[in-house]
Amino acid sequence: MINLGLVGYGTVGSGVVKILETNLSLLENKVGTKLNLKKICDRDKKRLRNLSAHRFALAGGKIVTTTNWEEIVNDPKIDIVIELIGGYEPARTIILSAIKKKKHIATANKALLAKHWDEIFTTAGKNKVLVYFEASVGAGIPVVQALNEGLAANRIHSILGILNATTNYILTRMSKKNIDFPTALKETQKAGFAEANPKLDIEGIDAAHKLSILASIAYSSWVKLENIYTEGISHLDQQDIKFAFEEFGYETKLLGICKEVITSNPERSRRIDVRVHPALIPQEHPFATVENEYNAVLIKGDAVGDVMFYGKGAGGMSAASAVVSDIIYLARHIHNQTAGKIPYVTYQKGKKLSFLPIGEIETAYYLRFTTVDRPGVLSKISGILGENKVSIASCFQKVPTTLRPRGVPILMVTHKAKEKNIRQAIEEIDRLPITRAKTVMLRIEE
Amino acid sequence: MINLGLVGYGTVGSGVVKILETNLSLLENKVGTKLNLKKICDRDKKRLRNLSAHRFALAGGKIVTTTNWEEIVNDPKIDIVIELIGGYEPARTIILSAIKKKKHIATANKALLAKHWDEIFTTAGKNKVLVYFEASVGAGIPVVQALNEGLAANRIHSILGILNATTNYILTRMSKKNIDFPTALKETQKAGFAEANPKLDIEGIDAAHKLSILASIAYSSWVKLENIYTEGISHLDQQDIKFAFEEFGYETKLLGICKEVITSNPERSRRIDVRVHPALIPQEHPFATVENEYNAVLIKGDAVGDVMFYGKGAGGMSAASAVVSDIIYLARHIHNQTAGKIPYVTYQKGKKLSFLPIGEIETAYYLRFTTVDRPGVLSKISGILGENKVSIASCFQKVPTTLRPRGVPILMVTHKAKEKNIRQAIEEIDRLPITRAKTVMLRIEE
Repeated sequence: MINLGLVGYGTVGSGVVKILETNLSLLENKVGTKLNLKKICDRDKKRLRNLSAHRFALAGGKIVTTTNWEEIVNDPKIDIVIELIGGYEPARTIILSAIKKKKHIATANKALLAKHWDEIFTTAGKNKVLVYFEASVGAGIPVVQALNEGLAANRIHSILGILNATTNYILTRMSKKNIDFPTALKETQKAGFAEANPKLDIEGIDAAHKLSILASIAYSSWVKLENIYTEGISHLDQQDIKFAFEEFGYETKLLGICKEVITSNPERSRRIDVRVHPALIPQEHPFATVENEYNAVLIKGDAVGDVMFYGKGAGGMSAASAVVSDIIYLARHIHNQTAGKIPYVTYQKGKKLSFLPIGEIETAYYLRFTTVDRPGVLSKISGILGENKVSIASCFQKVPTTLRPRGVPILMVTHKAKEKNIRQAIEEIDRLPITRAKTVMLRIEE
Repeated sequence: MINLGLVGYGTVGSGVVKILETNLSLLENKVGTKLNLKKICDRDKKRLRNLSAHRFALAGGKIVTTTNWEEIVNDPKIDIVIELIGGYEPARTIILSAIKKKKHIATANKALLAKHWDEIFTTAGKNKVLVYFEASVGAGIPVVQALNEGLAANRIHSILGILNATTNYILTRMSKKNIDFPTALKETQKAGFAEANPKLDIEGIDAAHKLSILASIAYSSWVKLENIYTEGISHLDQQDIKFAFEEFGYETKLLGICKEVITSNPERSRRIDVRVHPALIPQEHPFATVENEYNAVLIKGDAVGDVMFYGKGAGGMSAASAVVSDIIYLARHIHNQTAGKIPYVTYQKGKKLSFLPIGEIETAYYLRFTTVDRPGVLSKISGILGENKVSIASCFQKVPTTLRPRGVPILMVTHKAKEKNIRQAIEEIDRLPITRAKTVMLRIEE
């Protein structure tokens, strides 16, 4: 019999209990032995009271509930600790303590893994303990395992992801209903897809956590948050979402992007371009139809080409599906005494990755200038772009709008250019007396 | 050091050698030890001569080539046998002999697995040997592992797949260019996506092999070919592809479908509805944009909801990606002496599944009647449909065409109906003197 201890009885935690209850015989057939949910810990006593009577059926009516996680970590009978409280502390202490007690871990904690990858996997390796974390990226979409195992033969050229359900829901609202960011955020909160404090989501930090995990797997190293250029969506103007769609046929998405770039200098060295920001994608792009709370990850490998994974990126049951699948495989390994003999992820501690600074990336850009309505303006702007080696692919000058600040919007899509050149050009243009408002710049991902 | 023996040096086999050569250090880092491609067997000596010199670099110039597979299976040094010749024999004998010699297996052989699931996994279990087969479905898309492990927590409600690249390429041609089946087949052969003898592909048998594998994993049993209702695409008329698209907005795809159906009788027992046939899907369906040689699999689990996997379903490198990923994980297990302690797939030998006969399925249908141009025809047809409990959702009567045989096409889409009722109605309608040609029936998958 494999004993489980669950820390965190929130949305995902109660989803885990529900799956264990509903599919128990199916799961036990896969494991080859009994699964016993021995203890559940939550600091909120009220939640624990909500554990309805029939759920106690799981351990013959004997699930122990506690508000003290140490009762789980220090229980010598417990084989697997399921950490679902999220955040850095006490999650870090719980996981590290459990690992040191030779307990295997299933977690959905992306923030913790992104920030403490080295500490967690080094400690797990030393203690010959497995840490599974499928639910940390894309909820129930099994993309962690796919990248880690199913695509292991490949050198990973790129990873592109719609990794955050909240922002994708907000952007879908802004685009379909032409409403502004604060209104769309409120609707998203009402629909249950944004937290009361949505900062981690809307500033792109949650997506950066997930990208850190995917990139760390792809390059067998630790891609830290500080290596990831991160920009959120709270500054987006619905006008740009509308213009980008109507004039150029682009959808606006918050993307996590990780690419291995071969530099053009004589060494032709490999550098990692890794970033999270709003980006425009063409309507034919497979991500264009990924809407609302859905997530998608597109991985390009040297052998396999493009492979895409798609599913719900939010919701307790979807994430719980990944947690319980992890539990099954941990339990199989424990039952067969193979657990921890091989680490789950390859982590080459000493491996140094070289990152491409954001100024060095080359992509196409959408630009919206706001200027006075006077002859010579376009020539002035395009002149500055040209001096900075930015070449224009297409350009619209809109009729004066009632936008504040009043002015003529000039919309442009550039050919591929270096970001530092674009930024330099914008800085010069924004200093011109003809410019009425800060120029808007959005990266395009073809 | 892990020694590999490769049987079959065709498109996929040479892809495997190429990946081993290109990414060797990356792969060995993941395995934790050296990989040595010791022997390659192919019955065609010419192919073996094509093994260019630089590829011999792999084993320090010492890859042994042979036309006799027994030299691989009987080599006590070889740990993993990679079977890439396809077909039933001698593949079956090679794999079973290798298993009995305690060698682990990586194979792409869908036909063999579908036909000999029981024999292969029973023998593998007895000999504590692993059989990995990621490349057998969807080439490099890691859907076998996802269904088997990443979604293991779920009761699988349904699997929907575009599982065959050849037929998807043909149908894309027929639809985009409005050409007939034989012409599209020729174009597909020219493009390298159909074999000289395309029977297995165009008759839906290859898709049925793959569906047998997915369904067998999903239900921890063996779903045999004879349990799968199978219909190919060679009888499709491009007119119906065109009408379905233009009049009703449907795309035509060859689908593999597997659903767990709860019967409405008092026992409410579970039955498996498993079939391969051309089907119409709405343009909003995520499969509508899966074109040419691409494959996609949509899995619905009780916890995770819908998850989709998408990528190239053909091509030596894509399939080789899956084979080499299998090799990495087999090699890791062998190196850590954990290989074969746990079987890869759960196979409950005695488990009885109950299958839903094709007559009992309930779905919507597209029907094309070809009749004389005379008053009362529509009333007659709709009367017979009504008597058979088939209710019409929409109907178009086209102007007489120059189609052979001449006649008026009447197009209908029905509401959900039982297939045996539809068939009974068609039989009656086709016997009427007003009917000029056999009625066309296509199933709709919403």
